[in-house]
Amino acid sequence: MAKIEPRVLSGFRDYLPRKMIPRQRMLASIERGFQRFGYAPLQTPALEYLEILLGKYGDEGSKLLYRFKDEGDRDVALRYDLTVPLARVVAQYPDLPRPFRRYQIAPVWRAERPARGRFREFVQCDGDIVGSPDPVADAEVIQLGCTLLDDLGVKSYKVRLNHRKVLAGMEAACGIGAEQAVKVLRTIDKLPKIGPEATKGLLATENCLGADQVEKLFAFLEIAGEPLEVLSRIESLFPEGGVGREGIDGLRQVVGLLGAVGFGGRVALDLSIARGLDYYTGTVYETFLEDLPTFGAVMSGGRYDGLVGTFAGEDIPAVGISLGIDRLLAGLTELKVIEESQGAVADVLVTIFDGAHAPQAARTAQAVRAGGVDCELYPALAKLSKQFKYAERRGARWVVIVGPDEAACGEVQVKNMESGSQERVPLERLGAWMAEHKGR
Amino acid sequence: MAKIEPRVLSGFRDYLPRKMIPRQRMLASIERGFQRFGYAPLQTPALEYLEILLGKYGDEGSKLLYRFKDEGDRDVALRYDLTVPLARVVAQYPDLPRPFRRYQIAPVWRAERPARGRFREFVQCDGDIVGSPDPVADAEVIQLGCTLLDDLGVKSYKVRLNHRKVLAGMEAACGIGAEQAVKVLRTIDKLPKIGPEATKGLLATENCLGADQVEKLFAFLEIAGEPLEVLSRIESLFPEGGVGREGIDGLRQVVGLLGAVGFGGRVALDLSIARGLDYYTGTVYETFLEDLPTFGAVMSGGRYDGLVGTFAGEDIPAVGISLGIDRLLAGLTELKVIEESQGAVADVLVTIFDGAHAPQAARTAQAVRAGGVDCELYPALAKLSKQFKYAERRGARWVVIVGPDEAACGEVQVKNMESGSQERVPLERLGAWMAEHKGR
Repeated sequence: MAKIEPRVLSGFRDYLPRKMIPRQRMLASIERGFQRFGYAPLQTPALEYLEILLGKYGDEGSKLLYRFKDEGDRDVALRYDLTVPLARVVAQYPDLPRPFRRYQIAPVWRAERPARGRFREFVQCDGDIVGSPDPVADAEVIQLGCTLLDDLGVKSYKVRLNHRKVLAGMEAACGIGAEQAVKVLRTIDKLPKIGPEATKGLLATENCLGADQVEKLFAFLEIAGEPLEVLSRIESLFPEGGVGREGIDGLRQVVGLLGAVGFGGRVALDLSIARGLDYYTGTVYETFLEDLPTFGAVMSGGRYDGLVGTFAGEDIPAVGISLGIDRLLAGLTELKVIEESQGAVADVLVTIFDGAHAPQAARTAQAVRAGGVDCELYPALAKLSKQFKYAERRGARWVVIVGPDEAACGEVQVKNMESGSQERVPLERLGAWMAEHKGR
Repeated sequence: MAKIEPRVLSGFRDYLPRKMIPRQRMLASIERGFQRFGYAPLQTPALEYLEILLGKYGDEGSKLLYRFKDEGDRDVALRYDLTVPLARVVAQYPDLPRPFRRYQIAPVWRAERPARGRFREFVQCDGDIVGSPDPVADAEVIQLGCTLLDDLGVKSYKVRLNHRKVLAGMEAACGIGAEQAVKVLRTIDKLPKIGPEATKGLLATENCLGADQVEKLFAFLEIAGEPLEVLSRIESLFPEGGVGREGIDGLRQVVGLLGAVGFGGRVALDLSIARGLDYYTGTVYETFLEDLPTFGAVMSGGRYDGLVGTFAGEDIPAVGISLGIDRLLAGLTELKVIEESQGAVADVLVTIFDGAHAPQAARTAQAVRAGGVDCELYPALAKLSKQFKYAERRGARWVVIVGPDEAACGEVQVKNMESGSQERVPLERLGAWMAEHKGR
């Protein structure tokens, strides 16, 4: 057979051990965080019927679906996010207790143009609450998300908050009709990326807004300050009893609850946050690393009270947050917050003296593990010098040798790789010895 | 929008919390097991270039690939196993230290006809050693696999061992030529499933073997007994210096090493084990639950010394084992070894008395978590009776109430759901109280 070039698809990546070890620790920390808040694990298939996913993410999103016909000629697609599958699950299994809190940590696929911090396959870590219309739920998922980032040691981030009803109120106040509303939101959503001048240009050309409308809109978008202050100022610009005021009330409660649990400093109001996805109906939020402002959001979400209804026939309110571990990892690596691991997972390497002593070596490795210490056995016959070189490269703390002398008296030689000191330990005491020394 | 029927594709499944909670625990146990043996985590993409996967799994395997053209008109496929991607990785990154031990826990996809214990998407847990031709490596991955099953509490299983070179020797001894060899192996591989009579029939018809050849073959296949005994009997039927004897030597070392670490009783020789995949070159093994003999293998693998070479241009020896968590879970559930969880992940539910007391309730939940106890906040405004019903259904051990009386004096009411007893605890002491009580 001719040699096949080993390569990965553009936008996809291999995580080799040096990167995967810290990534695995991050994922474990996130999983613990979800559990601490009482979220239950859920897993859904990577492939869904195309019709389940289609039309949920806006026109741009639909174009990015990995879709194909399966062997039974069914139209299928790889999941684009974890939210739509959750909505399907809630509708499909009406016996699930509600309110339903679940987390899911799983890859999603989007055929995007690859770029810095943007991948075609990436793992999302989602926590959602289904069945509660109350801002208590919105505040909790944001608190949860902040806790996950805090657990990971992320120091400098801000959750930028907005509300679809505030956006609707703002559009109404600027005389933007319902037929233009969604398209205008898409343009506004680009503001952090393309800047105010380009945004104004698009609003005038693509969205056909008049100069006075653009000006009014930007008067809203430029309101800045403490969240509760910003809310009061916007409120004064909205007519009483309108949809905008509903959004203000919701945000005020969310901000108040986050303040009560000590996360007030983590959030800011930002009227330019619209979220591209079609299914949001209430609060929306995106989280940015303050030291990498142009890197894109690492955690986002919102309330989607209509999505479950597209499958269930009745509306069931829901709200959630999604942490993108891969972009976060890329960002933290760029910021040097996370360092690559040396690739070692075991503290101890047991060498194999020669073929005749392989069984003793295997027993020795077992004894180390029985002491609660991770241990690898050198898995081949090789010169001891080669085995030691491997141990050094892997960053092993101890190397164990079982040669003919040691084997004859039921002992092993333990070498401390840092100090170079050696010690003979009876095999039967090795587990206890390792347990004693592992913390040092 | 018209309602879309919520459903999953045939052969795919949702894991709802009651099933996912025990499954998650199994996956965590397996991950710990890999790490204890010094295996490093690796992650590869779900999608690969089709040419990477094609031709590695035999004709039947190739037909089962989920393949399509992506948005850039590239031929791509969902990964079929984790072994071929590993081989690609080893070839693609020549700087990886060798011997290279890695584990990967990830879903794979095969467009098989769905059946009991057979799914189109399932998670494989693979451990492999690349770069060692020595039976020490073969023995270790089998020991590792047995340890993973032991850790999961699987009581009754047997690893059925064979060797591709023993199979080759057996075929040679029966006068089966090289051109028929692979097809005959495929037929033999069906023996455990379809029984001896049907197998003999296929050997005569599909493989065109003569009656004497079939008889000779079955004389081999029916050799049974202690592994080392079986090996001696087969050896006596092989000519000296032939390929069959090489296989016998390899198996003898593997069996000896497994005996040395206390796993001798877990393995049996079985000349009918061939493994369908094309890439195996040495030891092969399949593991069956002895209480569910017809359920199919739950863990299998073997040595594949030529596979990396198809990408690297030079042969690099490798051996591995793959545990199929989904089939194992289905089997253990059928055997009632694993029970569904009630779906609760948190011991404590904090209720919300009313909207005015929501901030106190959120702070209370924080205090419980600070005590190291998982806690959920009821995420909506509802009658207390409804919140208690939810707590019962979820199996919460404690329910915490913060009403106006309690809030006024900085206390909370903690109700023990089992005994029904209640206790007032100062909010500032709640974390400590929970930490004290959680073990009881």
